[in-house]
Amino acid sequence: MKRSNRQSESARARFARNLKTLRIQLGLSQEALAANAGLHRTYIGSIERAERNVSIDNMEHLATALNVDIIDLLRVQ
Amino acid sequence: MKRSNRQSESARARFARNLKTLRIQLGLSQEALAANAGLHRTYIGSIERAERNVSIDNMEHLATALNVDIIDLLRVQ
Repeated sequence: MKRSNRQSESARARFARNLKTLRIQLGLSQEALAANAGLHRTYIGSIERAERNVSIDNMEHLATALNVDIIDLLRVQ
Repeated sequence: MKRSNRQSESARARFARNLKTLRIQLGLSQEALAANAGLHRTYIGSIERAERNVSIDNMEHLATALNVDIIDLLRVQ
């Protein structure tokens, strides 16, 4: 079964896409999300561009700040 | 609804438990998993003890080495 493009997407790209999509759905700016997660705004931007090899603890801080589970930010949408 | 102990478990603890459980189910030593994932054996041990703030890229290397998706290593079993 040929893997769809989304399934062959890296975990980084998935996390980046889901993070940005959910943040925008919730009407949060990068600044607001950064404040809620205890991270810096520029760090959020670099994660959303899939430039960061983000750690599991920061992934969890971001999920908690968005009131979802870490798995929700790694789904193949 | 009171969150079960497993749901309040940190992402690190979840990843550690799922990684060890799946590795053992597949009959792999820490050494063999480390070799498949391009990581050091002692690093696997420290991840399985939830001592490591493991990065998303290494989480993905480990999932690929175990032939599962990164989400499978973060499930609340």
